[in-house]
Amino acid sequence: MNIRDNLIEKFRVQPGKKLRLKDHDPDWSGDKDVPVEKRKEFAQEVLTQDVSSLAEAQELLYADDSWSLLAIFQAMDAAGKDSTIKHVMSGINPQGCQVYSFKHPSSEELDHNFLWRCMKCLPERGRIGIFNRSYYEEVLIVKVHPELIDAQHIPGVTPGDKLKKEFWEHRYEDINNFEQHLTRNGTTIVKFFLNVSKEEQAKRFLKRLNDPAKHWKFSASDLAEREHWDEYMQAYEECLSATSTEDAPWYVIPADHKWVTRASVAAILNQTIRRLKLEWPKPNQADEARIEQARRQLEGEKKASS
Amino acid sequence: MNIRDNLIEKFRVQPGKKLRLKDHDPDWSGDKDVPVEKRKEFAQEVLTQDVSSLAEAQELLYADDSWSLLAIFQAMDAAGKDSTIKHVMSGINPQGCQVYSFKHPSSEELDHNFLWRCMKCLPERGRIGIFNRSYYEEVLIVKVHPELIDAQHIPGVTPGDKLKKEFWEHRYEDINNFEQHLTRNGTTIVKFFLNVSKEEQAKRFLKRLNDPAKHWKFSASDLAEREHWDEYMQAYEECLSATSTEDAPWYVIPADHKWVTRASVAAILNQTIRRLKLEWPKPNQADEARIEQARRQLEGEKKASS
Repeated sequence: MNIRDNLIEKFRVQPGKKLRLKDHDPDWSGDKDVPVEKRKEFAQEVLTQDVSSLAEAQELLYADDSWSLLAIFQAMDAAGKDSTIKHVMSGINPQGCQVYSFKHPSSEELDHNFLWRCMKCLPERGRIGIFNRSYYEEVLIVKVHPELIDAQHIPGVTPGDKLKKEFWEHRYEDINNFEQHLTRNGTTIVKFFLNVSKEEQAKRFLKRLNDPAKHWKFSASDLAEREHWDEYMQAYEECLSATSTEDAPWYVIPADHKWVTRASVAAILNQTIRRLKLEWPKPNQADEARIEQARRQLEGEKKASS
Repeated sequence: MNIRDNLIEKFRVQPGKKLRLKDHDPDWSGDKDVPVEKRKEFAQEVLTQDVSSLAEAQELLYADDSWSLLAIFQAMDAAGKDSTIKHVMSGINPQGCQVYSFKHPSSEELDHNFLWRCMKCLPERGRIGIFNRSYYEEVLIVKVHPELIDAQHIPGVTPGDKLKKEFWEHRYEDINNFEQHLTRNGTTIVKFFLNVSKEEQAKRFLKRLNDPAKHWKFSASDLAEREHWDEYMQAYEECLSATSTEDAPWYVIPADHKWVTRASVAAILNQTIRRLKLEWPKPNQADEARIEQARRQLEGEKKASS
């Protein structure tokens, strides 16, 4: 196993094991004995390589036409979801990539099962789909603010009642079953939790407040959610422990340094596609005969008109 | 248990048991000692009652706003799916009922997981959704014509290869998991197999051929599918055995007599909604105070303008 694969393994949440976030340092940025400038430079090189491999991998995904890739991003505010998506995916042909951001559900969405609005946006065969937030909000923000469930009018759930442990276990199970169905039918899934520290979040919020051009990125509700930090971390631990599977693993990505986040995500996306062992389609004899015939016909037309 | 509930039980496919279609007579139409005209008259009365109860049940579903009902119809051609839906559902407020017919999948649909196109059409909370054909085609027609799977480009499936037993078991499992998820989140499901005999199908096809006004309902492919009758019956037996569950049961409805089919379906739909034990929402004290206030305000406006 090379260094890169080793790292990827380190970030992966082992299926069936209880994840402890305190084993994952948000501030991690490689071997501290190496000067930070060197590490940054190396990460930048890796990222550049991976972004271009990813563009190629996406073309292969398209040509092979049997798999799609779904990459899910979840994180606290200011962890860098948007900027990671921007920097990692910008080399890709947009025709082969669809990004969906899921905000507050609409009333039409609340009137359906909780997987519905994301299922509608699944990537087609041959494409990469990015979910910026996803159905995982249903076991994260909804777990921290259980009153949100009231708007879903779930049978058997009375507004104001405490939700049972079983309720969340059923949601994890529904999610795992759903992802199993997708994998069986040709959508490979990879999930990223961008793990930012509470201190780094404060720094980034302050930076937004001090830069008028970034005021639009800040809302008062961001601060309100920060109050629930520990509850969120617990919800993430439980969710990632219950839903990291061999087929659809979670990765906990250190997110206090954006250059670490970006290089890691790009490397993992590449590895995920590489594991599908896709090959460029080879024309068979009949195809080749047709190609030869087409060539002759077009050359004939050219001669006739000259 | 009254006679009607007894009958419903007789038609239900017991979860976990192997269904044998030879135990289900397509020609069944009640106690043969009673003159057929009497039986027909009785069925017509039952249907009239049930159609009006159903309209009321749908309003209750809407007012309660926590459940939706999904009714799935599967059958061989000319078994009476369309006419049953028409006769049973025609008393319902169309605002509370959505019917979707699933034909050959489009290329966009083929480029997604096989539940995708049906999931998009699920009924909203408070409504009745009717699927005229459904994702069950994926383990019926596709099982009889496994070459159809080639267009789905499923990873690991090579065109021309025989599909393994495991492949179909995974599909049954995916369907059961999906329906479990729906039930947990407020969609109750009922599934009808309209069981017509091969002889009755021939009669109905001939009737269509002899009536120019019904020619549009006949296509040459209907006859071609008839050639595969036994394979279809086997696919139905396997599918219904594997996917009839407590929460989402299959019913095998005798379909050689349309009056039997219609009365049975209407009765079962009614029972399915009744089982949810819905109640008309009762206004609480605060609601009542608001209602009283609104009444006073409007009466005041009336007085002022007179």
